[in-house]
Amino acid sequence: MFEGCLLCQKVNMTLAEITAQIVAKKSYLCVGLDTEFSKIPAHLQQLPNAVLNFNKAIIDATKSYCVSYKINTAFYEAMGVKGWQIMEETLNYIPKTHFKIADAKRGDIGNTSAQYAKAFFETLPFDAITVAPYMGEDSIKPFLEYDNKFTIVLGLTSNKGANDFEMLPTNNGILYEEVISKISTWGTPQNLMFVVGATQANQIKSIRKIVPENFLLIPGVGFQGGSLKEVSDSGLNKNVGLLVNASRAIIYAGEKENFAEEATEIAKQYQTEMAAYL
Amino acid sequence: MFEGCLLCQKVNMTLAEITAQIVAKKSYLCVGLDTEFSKIPAHLQQLPNAVLNFNKAIIDATKSYCVSYKINTAFYEAMGVKGWQIMEETLNYIPKTHFKIADAKRGDIGNTSAQYAKAFFETLPFDAITVAPYMGEDSIKPFLEYDNKFTIVLGLTSNKGANDFEMLPTNNGILYEEVISKISTWGTPQNLMFVVGATQANQIKSIRKIVPENFLLIPGVGFQGGSLKEVSDSGLNKNVGLLVNASRAIIYAGEKENFAEEATEIAKQYQTEMAAYL
Repeated sequence: MFEGCLLCQKVNMTLAEITAQIVAKKSYLCVGLDTEFSKIPAHLQQLPNAVLNFNKAIIDATKSYCVSYKINTAFYEAMGVKGWQIMEETLNYIPKTHFKIADAKRGDIGNTSAQYAKAFFETLPFDAITVAPYMGEDSIKPFLEYDNKFTIVLGLTSNKGANDFEMLPTNNGILYEEVISKISTWGTPQNLMFVVGATQANQIKSIRKIVPENFLLIPGVGFQGGSLKEVSDSGLNKNVGLLVNASRAIIYAGEKENFAEEATEIAKQYQTEMAAYL
Repeated sequence: MFEGCLLCQKVNMTLAEITAQIVAKKSYLCVGLDTEFSKIPAHLQQLPNAVLNFNKAIIDATKSYCVSYKINTAFYEAMGVKGWQIMEETLNYIPKTHFKIADAKRGDIGNTSAQYAKAFFETLPFDAITVAPYMGEDSIKPFLEYDNKFTIVLGLTSNKGANDFEMLPTNNGILYEEVISKISTWGTPQNLMFVVGATQANQIKSIRKIVPENFLLIPGVGFQGGSLKEVSDSGLNKNVGLLVNASRAIIYAGEKENFAEEATEIAKQYQTEMAAYL
């Protein structure tokens, strides 16, 4: 298993470097740190810094089998100031070799989006942030203006509510197709990715035709029921082009003292399956 | 000018109580605390706790003329952990008589939106949060489940990018109309409001037909160029039904030692104009 420090002199990751990591590790796994105090093992809950120590243990347990970590900001904001502190310390603990995503679903008018970009690209040195598309170009451009940072825009999501608006017919197809198509012209594969839910594997193929080059971040494999095989068959491109996220399936794999070993085991299963598809 | 403590025994505000405050003060003004260190008066920048002290001075200077404060989370997140702390302290400083909005534009799958709701309705005791609609019903429902808290969903925004997706034709009209129409069935005027940009005053009238009862939060008056008269003519309903936000026009009205007096003056101008429309 690759454990080198290919990138450890660099602050940001380019598309080529992400792909190089994936090829070296034979894994396009992203581990989602959706950490909730009430769900971490009971023996950890009784100790100080329980959430941070849990995150560190999960990172140590999975870093050989994944290329990326995704921090879901909601779970940290729910803890208030302390949570924001834990988010920062967790981010700092992630190895420089790994692609660091703020799953924050932000987006606002231009001068406000610029502040969000500062929050997640400068104050917190993430490599990427997830962004909502509803408010259009000037809500997304401030993120795209950063060199070697990635903006990951919601395309088609994995939840039931995707049917409410994302699936609406427009004059140019389905809304999510128009969102992906239009936004793809505002950036390049070097700075722009899309969120595409794995529970919608049958649609990944048509999205690949719209954006053959861009990476897709795929949540929904695992607890939400998406199939890794279907996703990979439909989504892989010549630069791999996929980051598949699993959160609860990995981080809550075990409830006891051996939770880290259980997390390793599940992450390794994903990696082994991914190696076969690459 | 009303300075009573009508509501100070209560944790949350109901629709009737918001309207009572508006009627008593003859104002439907919301002051937006989009505070940026580099834009506050130079003499404050040199002192400790500059941003918090600026916010407190602005609140003291404007509270007699407004019924609501809107904290734009981006500006605080850009400062990291310290910013989250300032946001909490600013929120705690806002009088209990005033309706407190987290302008956060959040929204994610159900279990994540539940964490955002906890963050802004429990950990930080805001009365309301702004929410993005793209991901549909299960991304919004967790916010609506709180009693006497308000979910303010993006309908039509005041930025140029609104043309990219919000204005797309669908089978049932324009996307923003379908968004407002469908989401209005998921809540009631007692827990659901909509963001409608003031730069689109000609569309407020048609939105009023879709949601005659719900409050509309109107940003874009002031720096973004919307007309208070047009907005009021088109949007007022029998319960007032409008909260009109001004941020930069008020909080950055003055750059010198007398910035608070300048802010008072502008807030008072808004209130005086609003009194004429009520």
